[in-house]
Amino acid sequence: VDEETMTRFRLTVAYDGRGFDGWQSQISGNGIQDLLLRALQEVNPGIPTVQGSGRTDAGVHAEGQVAHFDVPAGSRLDGRAWREALNRRLPAAVRVMEAGVAPPGFHARFSAIGKVYRYEIHEGPVLPPWRAGWAWQLRGPLELSAMEEAMAVLVGRHDFSAFAANRGRPERDPCRTLFRAEVTREGPEIRLEFDGDGFLYKMVRLMTGAVVRTGRGKHRPQDLAAWLADPGAERPSPLTAPADGLRLVRVRYEGA
Amino acid sequence: VDEETMTRFRLTVAYDGRGFDGWQSQISGNGIQDLLLRALQEVNPGIPTVQGSGRTDAGVHAEGQVAHFDVPAGSRLDGRAWREALNRRLPAAVRVMEAGVAPPGFHARFSAIGKVYRYEIHEGPVLPPWRAGWAWQLRGPLELSAMEEAMAVLVGRHDFSAFAANRGRPERDPCRTLFRAEVTREGPEIRLEFDGDGFLYKMVRLMTGAVVRTGRGKHRPQDLAAWLADPGAERPSPLTAPADGLRLVRVRYEGA
Repeated sequence: VDEETMTRFRLTVAYDGRGFDGWQSQISGNGIQDLLLRALQEVNPGIPTVQGSGRTDAGVHAEGQVAHFDVPAGSRLDGRAWREALNRRLPAAVRVMEAGVAPPGFHARFSAIGKVYRYEIHEGPVLPPWRAGWAWQLRGPLELSAMEEAMAVLVGRHDFSAFAANRGRPERDPCRTLFRAEVTREGPEIRLEFDGDGFLYKMVRLMTGAVVRTGRGKHRPQDLAAWLADPGAERPSPLTAPADGLRLVRVRYEGA
Repeated sequence: VDEETMTRFRLTVAYDGRGFDGWQSQISGNGIQDLLLRALQEVNPGIPTVQGSGRTDAGVHAEGQVAHFDVPAGSRLDGRAWREALNRRLPAAVRVMEAGVAPPGFHARFSAIGKVYRYEIHEGPVLPPWRAGWAWQLRGPLELSAMEEAMAVLVGRHDFSAFAANRGRPERDPCRTLFRAEVTREGPEIRLEFDGDGFLYKMVRLMTGAVVRTGRGKHRPQDLAAWLADPGAERPSPLTAPADGLRLVRVRYEGA
């Protein structure tokens, strides 16, 4: 961005992923990025594009997706005015939580140094209506200590190919660092939180599937360790946790 | 109910009130009671009706609405089987949380000795997508101590006509007892909980409106006391809190 002629704004965006085709622009026009760009251009037709920190799949939610856009210098709207103007134009399922001028050199995707995802499970015979679409309902019992052991195995720098879905082309570099992986339980709600420098395609949902199976005694934590050590090893067909329970909690940047 | 020929079951029902015309059967067939009766009759066409503890308005949610229905004796389904059979037939927005044989003489409406309602407020500039339809978004500031004082004024046995909407006919007896009225705050979430022996039409939403105005300094707690003491007194036009934030938390019965 030419900072002489353009001002870059940074947005924190929350969304209910149901009913949208994921973050990324789609031919359908139903990506969350599409909705956001249309709202931006309604306010200022000179805005060419909006850049997110990365994709989220259809049905996946966000508490803190981050995006940036550039406005021709001289626009009089400040962050708060942008937030209000966008929220007036967006559906209630997509909200700009924060908006402000980005620090110099900021890029929503390339400046990101980490992401935090949370996977929410409701353990019980009936999913309450207010959790529909927001949690994966599992009939228990799930053994929390086994799940904790499985999560601990995943932490560190590994080739995570064993926990990636095939997108028809191999990843150039399937190594990622998981800084933190924690399980917490509060009543029937179990939360898995993953903080890493990046995630392969469907990696959080595949890790969650393996951790859940460990909680049910179908895998041992050392099985997960073996698949990390040798992604080509024979293994049972993996379980992908549904999109419903997943949300992008926050994107981390230097100094935040 | 003739206990020789019929078995009475008690249900605890949770629902997302959006998209339904309230609890009560409607000509539209879109009352939650209608959906439930259709599901019951799909399983057993001999079930004539389902009785709730009382109405909830369109858009109002429930965590613990209670209902009963009678099945011709000899039916082989137990509570758990009923719960499963009904949840398979109901939309995800309506869930049977519990089902079991009712104690002798039980009637969902006439055996009820109290109800607990909760009103949820989100204080902040932006309502997160997961709270849309479940909370009333208010830009603050709301003074919690003033709200607490207002809630305390409401507790006790009073003629609550000043906090009732006109349904075109006067209430036979507008006196009700509010056992407990509490405000709690957790971050941007403010919850008002009301436990009483019964509630007039829109009473919780009208009490909430008055308590919120007290939190904004527009009413004093003693104003609410004056309206309770003299329901006919002149007063500013009342504020009805929207249905979104309201849920029936539980119905209380003797021994529970």
